[in-house]
Amino acid sequence: MKATQIDHALDGTLTPEMELISRIEKMDEETVISRVEDGSLVIMKRDNGRCVAIGRGATTKVNVNLGTSSDTIHPGEEIEKAHIAEKYGADTITDLSMGGDISAIRRSIFGHTSLPITTVPVYQAVVEKGLMDMTADDILSYLKIQVDEGVSSVVLHCVQKKMLERIKGAGRVMGMVSKGGSFTSVFMLSNKCENPFIEHFDEVMEILRKKDVVLSLGNTMRSGCIHDLWDEAHKMEAESNAQLAHKAHEHGVQVIIEGMGGHIQANDIAARVQFYRSLSNYPLFVAGPLPTDIAVGYDHIAGAVGASMASDVGADYLCYITPAEHLSLPSPEQVREGLVAFKIASHIGDSIKYGISGKDLELARKRVRFDWEGQMEHALDPDKPRTMCPDNPGPCTMCGKYCAISIMSNYLAEGN
Amino acid sequence: MKATQIDHALDGTLTPEMELISRIEKMDEETVISRVEDGSLVIMKRDNGRCVAIGRGATTKVNVNLGTSSDTIHPGEEIEKAHIAEKYGADTITDLSMGGDISAIRRSIFGHTSLPITTVPVYQAVVEKGLMDMTADDILSYLKIQVDEGVSSVVLHCVQKKMLERIKGAGRVMGMVSKGGSFTSVFMLSNKCENPFIEHFDEVMEILRKKDVVLSLGNTMRSGCIHDLWDEAHKMEAESNAQLAHKAHEHGVQVIIEGMGGHIQANDIAARVQFYRSLSNYPLFVAGPLPTDIAVGYDHIAGAVGASMASDVGADYLCYITPAEHLSLPSPEQVREGLVAFKIASHIGDSIKYGISGKDLELARKRVRFDWEGQMEHALDPDKPRTMCPDNPGPCTMCGKYCAISIMSNYLAEGN
Repeated sequence: MKATQIDHALDGTLTPEMELISRIEKMDEETVISRVEDGSLVIMKRDNGRCVAIGRGATTKVNVNLGTSSDTIHPGEEIEKAHIAEKYGADTITDLSMGGDISAIRRSIFGHTSLPITTVPVYQAVVEKGLMDMTADDILSYLKIQVDEGVSSVVLHCVQKKMLERIKGAGRVMGMVSKGGSFTSVFMLSNKCENPFIEHFDEVMEILRKKDVVLSLGNTMRSGCIHDLWDEAHKMEAESNAQLAHKAHEHGVQVIIEGMGGHIQANDIAARVQFYRSLSNYPLFVAGPLPTDIAVGYDHIAGAVGASMASDVGADYLCYITPAEHLSLPSPEQVREGLVAFKIASHIGDSIKYGISGKDLELARKRVRFDWEGQMEHALDPDKPRTMCPDNPGPCTMCGKYCAISIMSNYLAEGN
Repeated sequence: MKATQIDHALDGTLTPEMELISRIEKMDEETVISRVEDGSLVIMKRDNGRCVAIGRGATTKVNVNLGTSSDTIHPGEEIEKAHIAEKYGADTITDLSMGGDISAIRRSIFGHTSLPITTVPVYQAVVEKGLMDMTADDILSYLKIQVDEGVSSVVLHCVQKKMLERIKGAGRVMGMVSKGGSFTSVFMLSNKCENPFIEHFDEVMEILRKKDVVLSLGNTMRSGCIHDLWDEAHKMEAESNAQLAHKAHEHGVQVIIEGMGGHIQANDIAARVQFYRSLSNYPLFVAGPLPTDIAVGYDHIAGAVGASMASDVGADYLCYITPAEHLSLPSPEQVREGLVAFKIASHIGDSIKYGISGKDLELARKRVRFDWEGQMEHALDPDKPRTMCPDNPGPCTMCGKYCAISIMSNYLAEGN
């Protein structure tokens, strides 16, 4: 059977993917090998050769969710979102399509982006086989199909019966808000069985190993509001996912843990990251977190605050949130707004993890010279500010002729 | 001479303003009196009776800057911005007008909002008397005029020659970026004199006492980019402002310290707040801070991240930043975006200072019932999400019929 990145790392072999990551992340080759070996660094790859590293020592990565829903099916807009994701610096895309011809939409997104793509295979099983009718074989067969098509990563929700029993009647305000988690839960409840991915774990490992697809362990128990505090179900899932991650790693399968996501009080963020870190060193993927529920229509901003706080203390991989979160499927423009907000969060996180970046300095040097187009070279999104800045070099209209920088530049430059 | 809030507090008298603040801030009356007395809580008031408390034990407040510039003079838009500020929950407004008929614009803004208004009197002196021609008498006479008109607070930049000498040739990338600070500095340099506000401190105190106007000590030395690190000039100004604040307080004048603002690495924010706190307990006002320079066009988001971090550790009062920061005078719509971003930051800060709010819980309870209009009652901005949510109760178009909350609600509600 074909060796995975972990197999090669165990042999001490530097793969072309690791070599590429070493260059991109400015991490020496031995470090890349040892981190892939211990699972703290994961490499998502596309068959086009593109590689993205997530985890220890790598810059904080940002994922863009896109895809149709049962209510909103505009495949062209999903393609547009994929273009936007790539243009404005997303590291990965997750296709969550549940409306229209899901396979065709997925293939089309594949064709329009070079970024690694993640899917949640149970979504397609639910749509095409029915939530109440799908079988474990159906779920696994969609997993196989999507792996064969070249997805870089899949999300599997390894919720267990004991967790479901724990949140039943536990008084959570929002109950369960994970879509993939709810599908898997309904499957388990209606078939009176345990989790299909855990029941068929060896087969799942075999499927993922075939193309060295990264396993992302979903966060079914995440909170849907900040008043749904950390509870026993959260803890059980975090512990169980850490154990499953170890098992996957032993199979040579790279793994990411989705954790602490959803809605969390701001002062709990650091402690939760530390809790996950106490369980394992696999890369930590967070959605948001959202430290307030009242930022409706502005959840990308609340999420950027939470994600900055989470990445500051060690989250490796951020799932963006758009202004449309909790309201509607986002438009392409809202995808851009959400992505840029999370690029800001990852950049701020990196400034704490790795020190402040030269990009900020380059931009400031252009700013002090009123070189507008020069600033845009370093801006996270050059297009939006271009519509707002002066056409020619010179102070902006905020201060006009009373610009402090201009007024003081002669005095300060005299320097002696 | 009329007694100020501090005078009354020293006498142990509860003023109507303190009584109002006690109710608004849910702080007992004795606590309000003692905090006004020690200066850790400041009350800004309008002649219409409106009072806003800033400081220890009060919720984190948000200021909106508005006003014309020399390049962009649309008084009608400034009125619109004042309406937006009040509608979306700004606590105070600062009128920074430097274009058109400044007095008329200020009076018009006064007439269109009930919020406390702050000004920077040197701005009008510069425009109407000339940066190189204005005298100390001119500056003080504009201060008097604006105080007589009923401003609630004034910003005075108490930069000193020794600070100017310190940053001259110090290699700061962005030099000086405080407009009021640069005007005051130019005045000092061209007249070869010390700071006019310090030179005439007793007179300034007399003017402010007359209407119990809050003195906001400006932050001339703030950094214009995150690579301009904390330097000796910053430290000198922070220490000098703390001393001046003590002097003002001894005169019975309420005082706020503008500090640490501008651009700061994220991991310095907590330490800087602590540094200011080590010098005095006067309310701390921060602009941003911005923890990155590359969020051009999205500085409201970078600022909301920095402001959340600052308010988490004790900043009392946040000056908003709009998406147009560094680019142009903001439009009314950009004022709204900036304000809501900073309302999010202050709300997150309060969740750490005082625990999570019932508003979040109320919103979550409406959300789980798909009560869209009910959610809007608790939203920071109900208008924007109204354009994005479903018209009728039911899951949103993000998940449609595959909504996790719907799918799991029966199982979870069975509770036993």
